[in-house]
Amino acid sequence: MVSFECDYVAGAHPAILKSLIETNFENLPGYGDDHYSERAKAKIREACGREDADVELLVGGTQTNMTVISTMLKDYEGVIAPDSGHISVHEAGAIEYSGHKVIALPEKYGKIQAESLRECLKGFWENPTHPHMVFPGMVYLSFPTEYGTLYTLDELKEISGICKEYDIYLYIDGARLGYGIMSDDTDVTLKDIADLADVFYIGGTKVGALCGEAVVFTGGCKPDRFMTLVKQRCALLAKGRLLGVQFDTLFTDDLYFKISRHAIEMAARLKEIIRSKGWEIYYETPTNQQFILMDDAQMEALGKVVRYDIWDKYDEKRSIVRLVTSWSTRKEDLDALESVIS
Amino acid sequence: MVSFECDYVAGAHPAILKSLIETNFENLPGYGDDHYSERAKAKIREACGREDADVELLVGGTQTNMTVISTMLKDYEGVIAPDSGHISVHEAGAIEYSGHKVIALPEKYGKIQAESLRECLKGFWENPTHPHMVFPGMVYLSFPTEYGTLYTLDELKEISGICKEYDIYLYIDGARLGYGIMSDDTDVTLKDIADLADVFYIGGTKVGALCGEAVVFTGGCKPDRFMTLVKQRCALLAKGRLLGVQFDTLFTDDLYFKISRHAIEMAARLKEIIRSKGWEIYYETPTNQQFILMDDAQMEALGKVVRYDIWDKYDEKRSIVRLVTSWSTRKEDLDALESVIS
Amino acid sequence: MVSFECDYVAGAHPAILKSLIETNFENLPGYGDDHYSERAKAKIREACGREDADVELLVGGTQTNMTVISTMLKDYEGVIAPDSGHISVHEAGAIEYSGHKVIALPEKYGKIQAESLRECLKGFWENPTHPHMVFPGMVYLSFPTEYGTLYTLDELKEISGICKEYDIYLYIDGARLGYGIMSDDTDVTLKDIADLADVFYIGGTKVGALCGEAVVFTGGCKPDRFMTLVKQRCALLAKGRLLGVQFDTLFTDDLYFKISRHAIEMAARLKEIIRSKGWEIYYETPTNQQFILMDDAQMEALGKVVRYDIWDKYDEKRSIVRLVTSWSTRKEDLDALESVIS
Amino acid sequence: MVSFECDYVAGAHPAILKSLIETNFENLPGYGDDHYSERAKAKIREACGREDADVELLVGGTQTNMTVISTMLKDYEGVIAPDSGHISVHEAGAIEYSGHKVIALPEKYGKIQAESLRECLKGFWENPTHPHMVFPGMVYLSFPTEYGTLYTLDELKEISGICKEYDIYLYIDGARLGYGIMSDDTDVTLKDIADLADVFYIGGTKVGALCGEAVVFTGGCKPDRFMTLVKQRCALLAKGRLLGVQFDTLFTDDLYFKISRHAIEMAARLKEIIRSKGWEIYYETPTNQQFILMDDAQMEALGKVVRYDIWDKYDEKRSIVRLVTSWSTRKEDLDALESVIS
Repeated sequence: MVSFECDYVAGAHPAILKSLIETNFENLPGYGDDHYSERAKAKIREACGREDADVELLVGGTQTNMTVISTMLKDYEGVIAPDSGHISVHEAGAIEYSGHKVIALPEKYGKIQAESLRECLKGFWENPTHPHMVFPGMVYLSFPTEYGTLYTLDELKEISGICKEYDIYLYIDGARLGYGIMSDDTDVTLKDIADLADVFYIGGTKVGALCGEAVVFTGGCKPDRFMTLVKQRCALLAKGRLLGVQFDTLFTDDLYFKISRHAIEMAARLKEIIRSKGWEIYYETPTNQQFILMDDAQMEALGKVVRYDIWDKYDEKRSIVRLVTSWSTRKEDLDALESVIS
Repeated sequence: MVSFECDYVAGAHPAILKSLIETNFENLPGYGDDHYSERAKAKIREACGREDADVELLVGGTQTNMTVISTMLKDYEGVIAPDSGHISVHEAGAIEYSGHKVIALPEKYGKIQAESLRECLKGFWENPTHPHMVFPGMVYLSFPTEYGTLYTLDELKEISGICKEYDIYLYIDGARLGYGIMSDDTDVTLKDIADLADVFYIGGTKVGALCGEAVVFTGGCKPDRFMTLVKQRCALLAKGRLLGVQFDTLFTDDLYFKISRHAIEMAARLKEIIRSKGWEIYYETPTNQQFILMDDAQMEALGKVVRYDIWDKYDEKRSIVRLVTSWSTRKEDLDALESVIS
Repeated sequence: MVSFECDYVAGAHPAILKSLIETNFENLPGYGDDHYSERAKAKIREACGREDADVELLVGGTQTNMTVISTMLKDYEGVIAPDSGHISVHEAGAIEYSGHKVIALPEKYGKIQAESLRECLKGFWENPTHPHMVFPGMVYLSFPTEYGTLYTLDELKEISGICKEYDIYLYIDGARLGYGIMSDDTDVTLKDIADLADVFYIGGTKVGALCGEAVVFTGGCKPDRFMTLVKQRCALLAKGRLLGVQFDTLFTDDLYFKISRHAIEMAARLKEIIRSKGWEIYYETPTNQQFILMDDAQMEALGKVVRYDIWDKYDEKRSIVRLVTSWSTRKEDLDALESVIS
Repeated sequence: MVSFECDYVAGAHPAILKSLIETNFENLPGYGDDHYSERAKAKIREACGREDADVELLVGGTQTNMTVISTMLKDYEGVIAPDSGHISVHEAGAIEYSGHKVIALPEKYGKIQAESLRECLKGFWENPTHPHMVFPGMVYLSFPTEYGTLYTLDELKEISGICKEYDIYLYIDGARLGYGIMSDDTDVTLKDIADLADVFYIGGTKVGALCGEAVVFTGGCKPDRFMTLVKQRCALLAKGRLLGVQFDTLFTDDLYFKISRHAIEMAARLKEIIRSKGWEIYYETPTNQQFILMDDAQMEALGKVVRYDIWDKYDEKRSIVRLVTSWSTRKEDLDALESVIS
């Protein structure tokens, strides 16, 4: 069955599998000390335009969020996030399990508003009881957001400026980074992300890899003894080559950008189909996720042809249905979707 | 200087000091195995009308909240609390430091609304992605709340009913419990609290003791090996007698209730003074905390006579000032307040 | 360069790569809900002779140890391990980071001695201060051990018996399980392991997989809401298929056992070479790791031909060198080793 | 009944109770911002001869150990302690619960040996796999030890020197500090402790206070935002005056030293009685704890007259009995002990 359930329904991009096969019998040291990992990091630094950056390869998104946040924050600090942020909702409390509060801010289309961020920080420091409170030590946001929306460059600059003003970190969760920077409707580039964030990650799992996320620390903010901290958090992969080879391939010949772009093109077609069908749009996004409203009968018809994701209940009659394209979406998949009768 | 800053401005009720002196040279075992602790627990069980209850004595409020919550919840569970709850705001992230999320609900006058609680729980279980989320395992509320307000018996019954329906614990933070149940404007008794909550604590620190909070577990829900868990959380007092003697005294001849009632009477007088002064009331409560709005000039005048608490900024010109009575407030203190010229 | 550094110097067994390619474009649900994961689990249950077992697939060894230990133990419990155990030494404190003490026992050839285990448990329960101590809740041992040695069936039975007597879990770390059960010098089978341990894992990373460890819970001891606990510990792989496909392949046509056996045969040849060279044996093991003593000159000569692991300093002049075979060791690799002049 | 069970069998020194009564109705700010706490800290700095020291008052010993260790160590660090150290054995895993490993060293009479400390540190840094291990970040020792023994000044200097050489903290647990520095058999003074340790605490609970330990940080090593860290660890006492008044009293007119000396004199008499009785000495110490061996009949006879502590089983027939004097021991108590017939 064809699936629009999420952006990790397929395995890996064939070029990655090819690389894994070609390098398979090379004897390599473990834990990321192999030359593919080194080369991948160098290519990522170059793509970011930041020769000074430290790049580290981890396995998954929640793991990356927890590792970055818990190693960069001091014990008495928490992380500010939109209340729809992945760390606020869908990581089973991994951040709190690491001892840190997620300080939730109201969101608008999945995005933190600069104004409410400023108010939160100002309010904290003006509050005479703040020594009894969790100190805000970092701002977390996703680009694209969990709702498929994008911050504009100006919005990111404003948030980054507030973080600098209050001397706290800005961390950008780029689980779907490629689908953001390759959107038609963005003025944000990878270099912008690298310049504005103190730390961010380039998602591999949702953009062509079997697994893997590349964390980029700028400005020398990588925590000391990071490898030991990663090991302690059970996030150090023995065969680091698996991550190295994948990111080396993704950042060769712009593969990462090309396959991200493909997903955006498939999303454009998806939006056409949605409109042509007359399905009720919950909201349309500039990236690879689209949200529609459907009643039970519609969902049943849809489910006969494709797999999809029920995002949430909308009201007594309707649910929010999410349809997602990715690097692996084919035109045929969209044709199948178009054939749904409802 | 006279102080209305908080309800812990004085030491202990003289009867407690007297008991400490009288028992001082008795050789007693440590860690709460002394007969004063035993007697205090028996008297508390009786006052609660629950012979089946397990009573444990701890040192402070944040410590009690963390110990109760982290020992009763499973790893994958969090605690629901109003976003103005003490654990949400003023415990420096102690609950998160213990690994658990505080799931914040909007509050009204410091109180959880049954409706939003029900919505939260229903929404969680209906959400198809809930296995990736923090499970709600407990509801936390304060009686009185941090704003000095009180739940009615019906409100507590409804919340307790929802907890039973969803099979999660109801935990009541009674840091100021005496000032709640002795209010003129409540229909809630200590026995009601004991019947409706699975676990709650009777605050000593703010009601006459040097330190100490008495946790009451009903329905056999005290965690196994509780003493070891308390020790592990650094909350086991070597000289448990200090807690035992104090609570034994507080629950002899209704001392706890009498001195709580005194604070309520002093609060009535405080409210009269506030009204007579024409100070702008932010809000008036049925318990021992009152909130007014003052500008800088007013605060300066006030500060010449009494110590008070700045609760928060209200707007550019005014702050929210909190004035608190307690077991130790004297008529003379209120006379001093009345003498403020502003 | 040829490497005898560890048992994860190569990528994956070709059959695994083949399976990954064949299944690559199948659209599958995430988080282990795919049919390959289901099939892998069924095959593992069958190989263990335990239809009642719960099998879960995780990514790495340290992650598996931490996840199993921290989800099975109560807060007040710790895990007993030999002081040379992986969790005692080489996991950067991951177990302690999860809040639990590793209670170290003296080891003999990397193995816990039944006698000292019994003494530890008896001593704990007889100690009148034990409520102030960490309760032993689990025994951890590795099969094979970190030193390449093996417990006999009788030894395992005795340890398992002691665990049952004291009602604590027995957990076996099988990072190299295949290399243990396929040794010529063992009377222990996979079924024995499954019968004697409450929980154990079958290592994939060191036995042919790119990554992956299969945890087997017997006797219904899998913790409730395990998936959420795994997510909270950042150990839930989005593309669970990566683990499912690999273990499905490893447990098809006895591949896991055959490639483990291959490593044992290569180790036999390695031992011959060591003896023929006259290298000083530190100790010889019945599994895939061999330990020799070398001075700097010898190590330099060795290093010209192969990569090896320096296990530790032995004395001022000599180091302990570890040479490891695996599923990927070729006869040519051993020929290269034989060519070392020293 | 008279008790030699431990050094916290009585309440507080009468001078402390007197101070508590005298200051009881003074209105004071909470959380240690009162002038008694300030004065106590100043007096302690003076007694230590360290005007630069930061002094903080906490409630109990385990709490102090956890707070100091977990706020001073980095995540990847553990604390070295003798395997008989309080944090190794009798704190229910509080240090591990805070995420840090206690790296246990063999002890001799309860003391870390400089040689084994050096070996541990040297071995760690020479071990090529140390990035996968817990980094030693602090040495913990008790003065007096849990066995009542004392380090000599030279021993402390050597250990302190090793810590400086490896750039790690030296932390001294002074739960019974007074009984150490007032011993006849020591050449160590409070000033020496302050000069050699980076951080240590002066025990109040066992030396005349109802509760309370005074932590002394030298060399500016107090962690930033310490108050918030203390609150987060549930160790911030609302009525900080309770600690302030007690330590102010203990450090007025050398009370702390005088009552400690009294316990030493009582211990001298205790040792005479033990010898005169012909009881088998397990070992004799220069401080306030003495250890003897007794069989069941002897213990029964002893138990008729005094309460005592069973330290551990010694062999099938005999137990190790601990007898402890303190500031509250009276000559009459020792006379009672002398009357034991056995």
